Amino acid sequence: MATQRILDFLATRRPEGPCLVVDLDVVRENYLAFEKALPDSRIFYAVKANPAPEILRLLASLGSCFDTASVAEIEMSLEAGATPDRISYGNTIKKERDIARAFELGIRLFAVDCVEEVEKIARAAPGSKVFCRVLTDGAGAEWPLSRKFGCVPTMAVDVLRQAKALGLAPYGVSFHVGSQQTDLSAWDRALKDARFVFQALAEKGISLRMVNMGGGFPTRYLRDVPTAQAYGQAIFEALKRHFGNRLPETIIEPGRGMVGNAGVIKSEVVLISKKSEDDDVRWVYLDIGKFGGLAETMDEAIRYPVATPRDGDETAPCVLAGPTCDSADVLYEKTPYPLPVSLTIGDEVLIEGTGAYTTTYASVAFNGFAPLKAYVI
Amino acid sequence: MATQRILDFLATRRPEGPCLVVDLDVVRENYLAFEKALPDSRIFYAVKANPAPEILRLLASLGSCFDTASVAEIEMSLEAGATPDRISYGNTIKKERDIARAFELGIRLFAVDCVEEVEKIARAAPGSKVFCRVLTDGAGAEWPLSRKFGCVPTMAVDVLRQAKALGLAPYGVSFHVGSQQTDLSAWDRALKDARFVFQALAEKGISLRMVNMGGGFPTRYLRDVPTAQAYGQAIFEALKRHFGNRLPETIIEPGRGMVGNAGVIKSEVVLISKKSEDDDVRWVYLDIGKFGGLAETMDEAIRYPVATPRDGDETAPCVLAGPTCDSADVLYEKTPYPLPVSLTIGDEVLIEGTGAYTTTYASVAFNGFAPLKAYVI
Repeated sequence: MATQRILDFLATRRPEGPCLVVDLDVVRENYLAFEKALPDSRIFYAVKANPAPEILRLLASLGSCFDTASVAEIEMSLEAGATPDRISYGNTIKKERDIARAFELGIRLFAVDCVEEVEKIARAAPGSKVFCRVLTDGAGAEWPLSRKFGCVPTMAVDVLRQAKALGLAPYGVSFHVGSQQTDLSAWDRALKDARFVFQALAEKGISLRMVNMGGGFPTRYLRDVPTAQAYGQAIFEALKRHFGNRLPETIIEPGRGMVGNAGVIKSEVVLISKKSEDDDVRWVYLDIGKFGGLAETMDEAIRYPVATPRDGDETAPCVLAGPTCDSADVLYEKTPYPLPVSLTIGDEVLIEGTGAYTTTYASVAFNGFAPLKAYVI
Repeated sequence: MATQRILDFLATRRPEGPCLVVDLDVVRENYLAFEKALPDSRIFYAVKANPAPEILRLLASLGSCFDTASVAEIEMSLEAGATPDRISYGNTIKKERDIARAFELGIRLFAVDCVEEVEKIARAAPGSKVFCRVLTDGAGAEWPLSRKFGCVPTMAVDVLRQAKALGLAPYGVSFHVGSQQTDLSAWDRALKDARFVFQALAEKGISLRMVNMGGGFPTRYLRDVPTAQAYGQAIFEALKRHFGNRLPETIIEPGRGMVGNAGVIKSEVVLISKKSEDDDVRWVYLDIGKFGGLAETMDEAIRYPVATPRDGDETAPCVLAGPTCDSADVLYEKTPYPLPVSLTIGDEVLIEGTGAYTTTYASVAFNGFAPLKAYVI
């Protein structure tokens, strides 16, 4: 999945150490594909997926809005050229002083999932629009959701009523079907819940306007995933099914789906060894691991494609591990990874589909290793 | 476990945001306790546990040696005042150019666990001493070891013979019983394996001199752990049992045991809420989580004590979670954490025993949150 531009960059620049290279052309294609697949939805890029300034500037210039998790991400989005009305503060867990700071910066759209958060926003960002996140089960997603975000639909009704009572604008409902979601019907189940909240509040004289359908749009790792077009079609049909002719405004928040396949990590094989003479499985140690940017291999959740200079040769199962002295720094062990038998210490490998959730996940200096470098081209 | 000096520092300085405060007096006490408990062992502090310059300088001045995982950690140890003969390059996974750089810096002691690594060291650090790490099962440890490091004892014999053949000095055997190891007999089992390697090589005319007994010495989290004295006694007895009157040189590599209980993280309650009206368990969200320095809560492995300003009040079980938009950023959910019912948004809490494996584990900027600040006093 490395583009020719990425391969050329690596061949010409030969950067030392592990690094991520992101191709902006792919980000642009992804943005346009989302726009085409869901022409009536506004796109709020999930900044946390990859906040590189070059990516934010490109998306801002294409007309994207931004879903942010912190004041720092709001500031980065503003710097990239987004106006405050194109930014939502999408984290349901905010310090009141951070809400106040966001309000100062012009932000007027906030996520909540409980009355306690509504009270903070009413004090620190009076009159703002709020949307309430509803719990989903996350079934079908590769990076599972816990119950951390959202509340049950009946509670969302109370939360948004309280928002109204405190002078805020109850604006809508959000959900998230789980990251790397490949089950198209997940959106249908969540939209049914959203419709319930709309209806219950309408009966109390409160008219919601927006459904924030979150992210979850997958990127291609080792398996094919449905196209943006297929997602768009499924979501549009589910919207029609539940909302009929009175379609709400909609928002989507792609992160992984916007940048995942735009990036490739270049890494080096540091060591290949066995634990005993009669082991079937070799251990292959790379110069990047769980603490250097590949945190999403936690519980072997995300399985990245790995390209080697010896692809095509006979393969055998390997345990793939990182370079730190931490025994938890193992990428794939329960399900060993097939790699060429001819793979050699010093070989460069490409870990593909790593444009999202890698650079900022990297640890500051664990074991003395520098954080993942990134080049956006 | 917060010392008066830490409490005074927090009360006087009132640092903004989550931060770690480390009390050097506790580090000094820990060093002296290890020295007293194992008077015949050399102490190699595991720099990766906390590489703060103040800690390294203190330990260097006390006479400590240093176990390092990378060239950067070697350089930090040298800067802190350690001479190269007091530094081991203890990572079994090293790039050949990093071995060469370490050799240039004067390092002559290297860890290996396979012939492939021995070959690199023979080329890049000719004549150096090497010790071979032997696999242990890690039973009894709270932070489990995978099979990532070490090889079976019979293979260690071959590895050290190959070292000899390539002009290196086969110096000894190392093992690691698993971090936060509270089962004293774990050292006995590992020393038995070490003895096997000594014996097998002696029969081939190679005389090893050193056993590196690694780390694993626990710090007190929620449960009492054996004292350094008890560890010293158990280890000395196991050494006598397996090596009789010909005791080898020994090395220990405490990391967590040296700095864990010296540090406390100050954090703030950002939100307390429920997911539905009839939930028993409240969600308590802090301004630090898995990506901000508490990575060792992975799989709820390490359970830190949390002190609140309302301790003594009635408690109820809570899910404890971090502030990021990542649903994996939950600290304790499977086993909820009892916290005062009176706990309130804005309360400051102290997460104790966090001197080790926190600051450098913190992510660079995940969700736009800054890495964990640290004050060493």
